[in-house]
Amino acid sequence: MAPELHRRLAAEALGTAMLVAAVVGSGIMADRLTDDRALALLCNTLPTGAILVVLITVLGPISGAHFNPAVTLVTALHRRMPGGVALVYSVCQIAGAIAGTLVAHLMFELPVLQYSATARTGMSQWISEAVASFGLVFTILAAQRYRIDVIAWLVGLYIVAAYWFTASTSFANPAVTLARALSDTFAGIRPLDIPAFVAAQFAGALLAMAAANLLTSDAIAVEAPVGEGAAAINPPRSSRRTP
Amino acid sequence: MAPELHRRLAAEALGTAMLVAAVVGSGIMADRLTDDRALALLCNTLPTGAILVVLITVLGPISGAHFNPAVTLVTALHRRMPGGVALVYSVCQIAGAIAGTLVAHLMFELPVLQYSATARTGMSQWISEAVASFGLVFTILAAQRYRIDVIAWLVGLYIVAAYWFTASTSFANPAVTLARALSDTFAGIRPLDIPAFVAAQFAGALLAMAAANLLTSDAIAVEAPVGEGAAAINPPRSSRRTP
Amino acid sequence: MAPELHRRLAAEALGTAMLVAAVVGSGIMADRLTDDRALALLCNTLPTGAILVVLITVLGPISGAHFNPAVTLVTALHRRMPGGVALVYSVCQIAGAIAGTLVAHLMFELPVLQYSATARTGMSQWISEAVASFGLVFTILAAQRYRIDVIAWLVGLYIVAAYWFTASTSFANPAVTLARALSDTFAGIRPLDIPAFVAAQFAGALLAMAAANLLTSDAIAVEAPVGEGAAAINPPRSSRRTP
Amino acid sequence: MAPELHRRLAAEALGTAMLVAAVVGSGIMADRLTDDRALALLCNTLPTGAILVVLITVLGPISGAHFNPAVTLVTALHRRMPGGVALVYSVCQIAGAIAGTLVAHLMFELPVLQYSATARTGMSQWISEAVASFGLVFTILAAQRYRIDVIAWLVGLYIVAAYWFTASTSFANPAVTLARALSDTFAGIRPLDIPAFVAAQFAGALLAMAAANLLTSDAIAVEAPVGEGAAAINPPRSSRRTP
Repeated sequence: MAPELHRRLAAEALGTAMLVAAVVGSGIMADRLTDDRALALLCNTLPTGAILVVLITVLGPISGAHFNPAVTLVTALHRRMPGGVALVYSVCQIAGAIAGTLVAHLMFELPVLQYSATARTGMSQWISEAVASFGLVFTILAAQRYRIDVIAWLVGLYIVAAYWFTASTSFANPAVTLARALSDTFAGIRPLDIPAFVAAQFAGALLAMAAANLLTSDAIAVEAPVGEGAAAINPPRSSRRTP
Repeated sequence: MAPELHRRLAAEALGTAMLVAAVVGSGIMADRLTDDRALALLCNTLPTGAILVVLITVLGPISGAHFNPAVTLVTALHRRMPGGVALVYSVCQIAGAIAGTLVAHLMFELPVLQYSATARTGMSQWISEAVASFGLVFTILAAQRYRIDVIAWLVGLYIVAAYWFTASTSFANPAVTLARALSDTFAGIRPLDIPAFVAAQFAGALLAMAAANLLTSDAIAVEAPVGEGAAAINPPRSSRRTP
Repeated sequence: MAPELHRRLAAEALGTAMLVAAVVGSGIMADRLTDDRALALLCNTLPTGAILVVLITVLGPISGAHFNPAVTLVTALHRRMPGGVALVYSVCQIAGAIAGTLVAHLMFELPVLQYSATARTGMSQWISEAVASFGLVFTILAAQRYRIDVIAWLVGLYIVAAYWFTASTSFANPAVTLARALSDTFAGIRPLDIPAFVAAQFAGALLAMAAANLLTSDAIAVEAPVGEGAAAINPPRSSRRTP
Repeated sequence: MAPELHRRLAAEALGTAMLVAAVVGSGIMADRLTDDRALALLCNTLPTGAILVVLITVLGPISGAHFNPAVTLVTALHRRMPGGVALVYSVCQIAGAIAGTLVAHLMFELPVLQYSATARTGMSQWISEAVASFGLVFTILAAQRYRIDVIAWLVGLYIVAAYWFTASTSFANPAVTLARALSDTFAGIRPLDIPAFVAAQFAGALLAMAAANLLTSDAIAVEAPVGEGAAAINPPRSSRRTP
């Protein structure tokens, strides 16, 4: 039996709040302590990856630990969650994300309400967000199938990589994008630039859904060496597919 | 059968000593080797997270690896530990923490007895400590319920993140706070600032206890994707709840 | 039953593409953000290691997650894969690698088609590549035997180390080497220097095959302390040896 | 049945060689790329920790993955290994360590034979080495008892921490110390300073043996929260104690 909906919603709100507080807060701290922009991004990257592993592990059993409307949308499209629940999930994620920004500002003695002036726009940014979201959602869908026990680690590590290999530093999350528009700090994004970012994120997520449908199957590799064991240890559980 | 109390107390003292030696020692080393303050904090963060994983894993089976009076208090309030034991646990944690500071000073050829002159005060610092301790204790309580096998990793990763997303660099531990007042180095805190820090830490810990009671339940999510497996692999053990 | 070949090939292409996009993309990002070359390499190293863990874990169950013609060759020489399949695997790896470079250029608004001008030649570079590939393939072969459940982690961690302990920053992969010649950025290599690199990589891989044959056996250490448990927990599965 | 002795010895030599090549090689690389000494040490630390996890995991099942005469000595004193075997283990470790230094020099185009001129002496250095070795050996002994499945991770993480919290950067290994005297690079140590380092390392190791005997017991904590699960999942195996 699933936890009652209100617990799940609270978990989504709390988790997204802590995630955004970590993203925004570590960006402020790093930016204050160094002039080297690569070092600042590194000191923003590692806390983000670390908190993702923690939050997904401890809140996953309650709400699924989406913290991300794009992930929730894919879940609903897979018919694993009713559309109405997906909607309230997303609302709670956004509310939590905004709260996380405010808490970060409080902790760093900044004006609580702000708007970012950091322009993040243009085709290369949008391709980056689509690639980032594609990789994130593909990782989640494949991990659900093959190695659910380490999914929190995979998401954290994926984001650590994506912060660096995309030109946008991989927001890959509509709720987080919205909240980061409310912080004129290292991790901010101009409100004007949100719609294209979010569109690119949903596009990447849907593409990942298609790719995961094509690539994953119940059959398991027996010849190829590197990953064969993962499959042997975690055979796909067909029961999970049942809505 | 639990290990005899004296072994548990020795484990608490040894673990807290090594934790504080790592926090203070890596702070001194980092501070000596670079002028970049973000880099110094990073080189203080990673050893702290790493040693936490090690110490909690190897001493946890002996004493529970609290190393933290706030964690011990929550344990006692959950009626998993008699008040008297909690008290001696805390005393040993504090004694160990102070010993750890002294050992760090010895290793780095510094005067053994010092008092920190680093001011850490003000509302934003206190909010930071409350948030840091809330997250730490919530992580521990939820991990005990859902993924006890990786709790050491979660605590280490949480602290790696919290060093950066809080303005106080996340002391989150009354015994460690006390010991860091005895070191006028990178990781120090002015003795005058201890009481408010400790109060904020206990406040955050109690808030986490309440949140964990509200959010965690024996029912398991079945629809949401990201974390469902964690629950399947580590079903809540109701027996653990029995005092 | 193994997944159909076309799925396996798609997984190899996708995985190698994402790997190379991460290597090249994080190199560009790091190079743009800092003048410190060690910091740039660190910010290239960590995303590479992180994405390797992710990709090997989620694609391993489909294709074995080679992403590397040297690994595929060793697999074929072990008679775990027909020569024809090994050949198409390699072609897909190279195609994927090149696509990954192009995507990285797109994300960072660089000319899509480029040739690297970075000279990487000389005996010390070749020894480095041979050592790097030896270590990589030995790690894979031994991990397949003893701890297949963590093989993705071991490969990621090995590459993190090898980026630093070899003078060549450890390409250790003919497909990735080829693709990096098409990027005149931080991670590039002059096309002229490819043949010797690839030869050294295959030499290292074959040496690792020999060393693994000599060192690994079905018998398990019982006296020595550090690693005994690994063997106890993951006894060699003789069935895996069956072609 | 244990692997034949010659395989075990080859594994010890190979593993120690790769460990030292990683320590010395990453030190050279880091030192060449940056003037910031903290950054250089960080770029020496992470590869060292990473390669330790890899080597202990893949060679542990063959030889126990000591790579360290102090660990071998403790093993022999625990009567888990005959004295004669311990002696040849140590010889192979030293030979491997020296070979690793030479390979690192070859890879970086340095004179193969060198002597370090880096003075590392004085009481604070010796205390540091004793503390470092105490922590390392205690971690190994406790991990063998409680969480052998993650012992490679614990050793790697411990060394990551100890590089920073000790003033000596934690050699903690007589064979590695000897080999590092043969490299006049970042990781070197003056030959003259070896004896006191090695003496401190053995002292720390013996102290750890005593502490582990006092602290670990077959009884398991049932009340304390943080680490209780580790014990539940990995009950002490009394059979391991049988020589």
